[in-house]
Amino acid sequence: MDNIRSPFRGIIKDVEGRKACYKQDWVGGFRSGIRILAPTMYIFFASALPVIAFGEQLSRETDGTLSTVETLASTAICGIIHSILGGQPLLILGVAEPTVIMYGYLFSFIKNREDIGRELFLAWAGWVCIWTALMLFLLAIFNACTIITRFTRIAGELFGMLICVLFIQEAIKGLVSEFDVPHGEDIKAEKNQFQWLYTNGLLAIIFSLGLLYTALKSRRARSWRYGTGGLRSFIADYGVPLMVLVWTALSFSLPSKIPVGVPRRLVTPLFWEPASLYHWTVIKDLGRVPPVYIFAAIIPAVMIAGLYFFDHSVASQMAQQKEFNLKNPPAYHWDIFVLGVMVLLCGLIGLPPSNGVLPQSPMHTKSLAVLKRQLIRKKMVRSAKECMKHQASHSEIYGKMQAVFIEMDKAPTTISVAKDLKNLKDAVMKGASEGVEAKSNFDPEKHIDAHLPVRVNEQRVSNLLQSLLVGLTLCAIPVIRLIPTSVLWGYFAYMAIDSLPGNQFWERMLLLFVTPRRRYKILEGVHASFVESVPFKFMAIFTLFQFAYLLMCFGITWIPVAGILFPLPFFLLISIREHLLPKLFQPQHLYELDAAEYEEIAGAPHRNLSLSFKERETSTGSEGSSELEVCDAEILDELTTNRGELKLRNSNFTEERHFQVYPEDRSDQHE
Amino acid sequence: MDNIRSPFRGIIKDVEGRKACYKQDWVGGFRSGIRILAPTMYIFFASALPVIAFGEQLSRETDGTLSTVETLASTAICGIIHSILGGQPLLILGVAEPTVIMYGYLFSFIKNREDIGRELFLAWAGWVCIWTALMLFLLAIFNACTIITRFTRIAGELFGMLICVLFIQEAIKGLVSEFDVPHGEDIKAEKNQFQWLYTNGLLAIIFSLGLLYTALKSRRARSWRYGTGGLRSFIADYGVPLMVLVWTALSFSLPSKIPVGVPRRLVTPLFWEPASLYHWTVIKDLGRVPPVYIFAAIIPAVMIAGLYFFDHSVASQMAQQKEFNLKNPPAYHWDIFVLGVMVLLCGLIGLPPSNGVLPQSPMHTKSLAVLKRQLIRKKMVRSAKECMKHQASHSEIYGKMQAVFIEMDKAPTTISVAKDLKNLKDAVMKGASEGVEAKSNFDPEKHIDAHLPVRVNEQRVSNLLQSLLVGLTLCAIPVIRLIPTSVLWGYFAYMAIDSLPGNQFWERMLLLFVTPRRRYKILEGVHASFVESVPFKFMAIFTLFQFAYLLMCFGITWIPVAGILFPLPFFLLISIREHLLPKLFQPQHLYELDAAEYEEIAGAPHRNLSLSFKERETSTGSEGSSELEVCDAEILDELTTNRGELKLRNSNFTEERHFQVYPEDRSDQHE
Repeated sequence: MDNIRSPFRGIIKDVEGRKACYKQDWVGGFRSGIRILAPTMYIFFASALPVIAFGEQLSRETDGTLSTVETLASTAICGIIHSILGGQPLLILGVAEPTVIMYGYLFSFIKNREDIGRELFLAWAGWVCIWTALMLFLLAIFNACTIITRFTRIAGELFGMLICVLFIQEAIKGLVSEFDVPHGEDIKAEKNQFQWLYTNGLLAIIFSLGLLYTALKSRRARSWRYGTGGLRSFIADYGVPLMVLVWTALSFSLPSKIPVGVPRRLVTPLFWEPASLYHWTVIKDLGRVPPVYIFAAIIPAVMIAGLYFFDHSVASQMAQQKEFNLKNPPAYHWDIFVLGVMVLLCGLIGLPPSNGVLPQSPMHTKSLAVLKRQLIRKKMVRSAKECMKHQASHSEIYGKMQAVFIEMDKAPTTISVAKDLKNLKDAVMKGASEGVEAKSNFDPEKHIDAHLPVRVNEQRVSNLLQSLLVGLTLCAIPVIRLIPTSVLWGYFAYMAIDSLPGNQFWERMLLLFVTPRRRYKILEGVHASFVESVPFKFMAIFTLFQFAYLLMCFGITWIPVAGILFPLPFFLLISIREHLLPKLFQPQHLYELDAAEYEEIAGAPHRNLSLSFKERETSTGSEGSSELEVCDAEILDELTTNRGELKLRNSNFTEERHFQVYPEDRSDQHE
Repeated sequence: MDNIRSPFRGIIKDVEGRKACYKQDWVGGFRSGIRILAPTMYIFFASALPVIAFGEQLSRETDGTLSTVETLASTAICGIIHSILGGQPLLILGVAEPTVIMYGYLFSFIKNREDIGRELFLAWAGWVCIWTALMLFLLAIFNACTIITRFTRIAGELFGMLICVLFIQEAIKGLVSEFDVPHGEDIKAEKNQFQWLYTNGLLAIIFSLGLLYTALKSRRARSWRYGTGGLRSFIADYGVPLMVLVWTALSFSLPSKIPVGVPRRLVTPLFWEPASLYHWTVIKDLGRVPPVYIFAAIIPAVMIAGLYFFDHSVASQMAQQKEFNLKNPPAYHWDIFVLGVMVLLCGLIGLPPSNGVLPQSPMHTKSLAVLKRQLIRKKMVRSAKECMKHQASHSEIYGKMQAVFIEMDKAPTTISVAKDLKNLKDAVMKGASEGVEAKSNFDPEKHIDAHLPVRVNEQRVSNLLQSLLVGLTLCAIPVIRLIPTSVLWGYFAYMAIDSLPGNQFWERMLLLFVTPRRRYKILEGVHASFVESVPFKFMAIFTLFQFAYLLMCFGITWIPVAGILFPLPFFLLISIREHLLPKLFQPQHLYELDAAEYEEIAGAPHRNLSLSFKERETSTGSEGSSELEVCDAEILDELTTNRGELKLRNSNFTEERHFQVYPEDRSDQHE
């Protein structure tokens, strides 16, 4: 209630917080110079490819009314706006799967209604956007972002899993469609004769499975044993677009006797063609929509506003996980407000709106992170231990460590270095103030690990540049049209499979299929703490409940028009989690299973990771550190899931969210 | 020279040695009852599939004169003879790739010569077999098997690699041929029109890659986390034939509009058809071969005899590796003699001869091995350590261990138990006789590991039954003809890739592509000792020499008629290894790289393996051993390479070979 009584409170705080570092966001970015291009290109390819794929899906669901041109344009426009006006510039925007599904429902609802018809589809969708924007404004003004602490893992992972299932469904539907005559095409054309349809289908199987296999392989290139570090990094970062290129090139190596049109390629108009230019006049048609439809648009608008609010905030959170150690404040309320503006704009020019996307947002932060940590850590632990041998005082230990730290960290971000050092000093000195015996409790490894974080180059340039590149991609549509559709079906399957590792719901489902006698294998490897702390029976019941819920959600998406309500179960789930589940499960089990705190991964993986670092140190010897290839990206890969979520957490996630929303509370607590 | 002066010495010794256990070979086998069927079926599928594949290859290389019928018939006949008359019943016989290649050369040499012609091909091949048999007799009589100690790893692995390259070549050639009209078929048939040829080719790509991928995956099923132990074992043991079945079934799920003949399937006559029945009259045509060809047959005969001598002996050795702890004596000389008899017989009835095959022979031994070792070991170590705590005497320790051993090992083979116990007793007591201080040096883990071996059920029944089953497969040819040829091309690729892990030549080649900074990754994993002990430069030179030699050997196989001399470089290599290489490399490097002793794998893998066993023990606790799924086959999988070679060796291989050939020397040394 407090939130409603003090409107604009969150927005004002956000704006003030970001204003203080706004200039630095640009200056810092430009000062990085050419080095900023690496993360820019990386995140550009990571966000452009799905947008192209979703464009093709949208084109099929809206009979070509909207296509890749529109998804690319929306991503570029919203990205540019967000990079300039948005609060958190690490957040990456794009047209996402939920938007595509929603637009699919909107189109299928409207297309056969005579009183409105498909020519007014974009105008009606514009009204949906107007309502959505209005709701987003209200959510932002009345500080609704404070409720994001109630979204627990169960909802997030269930939603991720549903998207994964929908991707697989899209891949299969697409692959099957390759064996049929495309909608609205001439049945008598040579390429639509049985033998060529069949050939097209077989080629589609080869291309899509080929892309899937090679993309999954190249994803793991960084840990390959072969090839130079640069080559491996290149393949790991750009492997997927590279494979799209390779398979597209292969599709042109077919014998010339095969008729044109086999294999099928993307269909999308050029953006200077009339079909695209119509968008600029959508606003004029808004008034032609019958009033009953204008009010009916509220229903989908509620769903979309809910989805966007959820998606945008979670993507932003993931880009600002505590372990990334960001220095600039978050801006959840302001970002929702800006999102409302963008939704409104997109609606008025007939584009599907964009919102914050996963996993690109945390990938963006990751690509900007520099991990000096390992190298600094080693040296500091050594010097601290040496001092301890000589019975040095705490201030001597700290002096030694400070020297190493400053020597190693030659980055120009002196403010944050000072801050890090202060934290470290507090930790070391705290021991001193608690008496002499505390000295023996001082563990250099632990203290240094906790206070030596990753450094992220926070700026707005990479986000702006990648959005501009997405915009430029519009000019490359003649090239994009060369991509075989089957390659995209493989890409959908790739996105689905790539999102699974690290999803605990998925891992728990797999666990159900492990025979009891084999469970020791799980314990031997990296595993979540619930494996040890929650009895198998409860874990199984919880997982089966979640699976049944997933089936229900998936079932709803199949209902012709009411399918548009598919986000409803997710909103319901928050209430179920809060009121029903605590009655069915013991609190500590629930705490482990539904990581409201996202902190259940502990123990084994931690041990394993530090073990692997230690082995590396041992095997090369203390003098061999210069020979050792310390690759930041590889270590970061080890530390994060494919979805960009950090595996190791040393803080309570709810608390963290709380502080992200009310940063002033944190400083209160500290003082 | 000593060998030539005492002809028949080896054969007589072999016959005497095997005669002593001949009755037991049958009695023991039948006493195993129904349990013998598991290894029988396993080895039947493992040996029947390659024979079918080689039959198809042979059919293509001899324009259908010989095909799967003949390879199956030869394998069955030779297998039955060997299981009854052969010395070492663990050795599995079959038509192998070298035979197929040789017959290909013989046919291409003869087919266009007017003075003999292709209708006398089998008669001429009969003469080649007669000469080959003669040479094998001489080799057996003059104890040539003693020279097998000179075959070092370099020759064996090079040969294995050549076969691997030839398999890959066969897979690619086969796959490419799926896009062309088959030799001698009607160009105007519907299935031979471009669109259907192309469809056939695309289907071939899908089926062959599908088989390759699924077969490689199913091979590793035993270590899967999912599914029950029985199911996983079943998939691991029968996965490859199962996948052939699955893909064959899938090939029947194609739409009915596709013309008959797409996809292409195996072409092989039924054995009661005239084309097959001709074989019985080959002997009558022997006299029609012109004398100059009869003598020319000596050249291929020398090559074949050399190859068979090498292959048969090495396959037999691999089936009798010391770690399998066989109780019955070897019979190298006698087996070469029996091989001569079989070659002669096959030649006279126009069949391609069979010889001992890899990796089926060691696979056979492995499938008959029972690994009580782990369970016994754990109990014995515990009881020994307990005794040591109480300062017990050596005889007390031994008494305790004996009790556990006898209690655990309830197998009826009491003779061998006694022998094992004697070895163990000697080892424990030896410490006692060397004085009191030796007691502290007594390490239960080490002593027990060295003296507690695998127990192999040595008998002739499984070999006989699997040969009979191969014979019965002849009646199943109408079913075999349903297999798409493309599935076989995938199977060739599978055989090639499956043979690579464990081949040090291959592993050294891969090592050349690891960047220097990444080599620590090799040291972290299981690795051969040469990685640590031989400077990279020498390792690289040695490997490049071996690679150049491989290229040369492969080049020779491409020469039209002289290609028949392709085994020559291998015979040469033995001389090069003995005289040239020691001048180029330091002896200790050569010792590590060219494991004349096959013992270079040590250190790391050993540590790793014992580590994993320990973890397993720890994670289940001392009381949990009954819950633990101890699966013999899985542990054996861990201990052997895909080629059936044991990774861990605690003995000198040359020495072992020496003792296998002259078993009496071993007892000399022991006394």
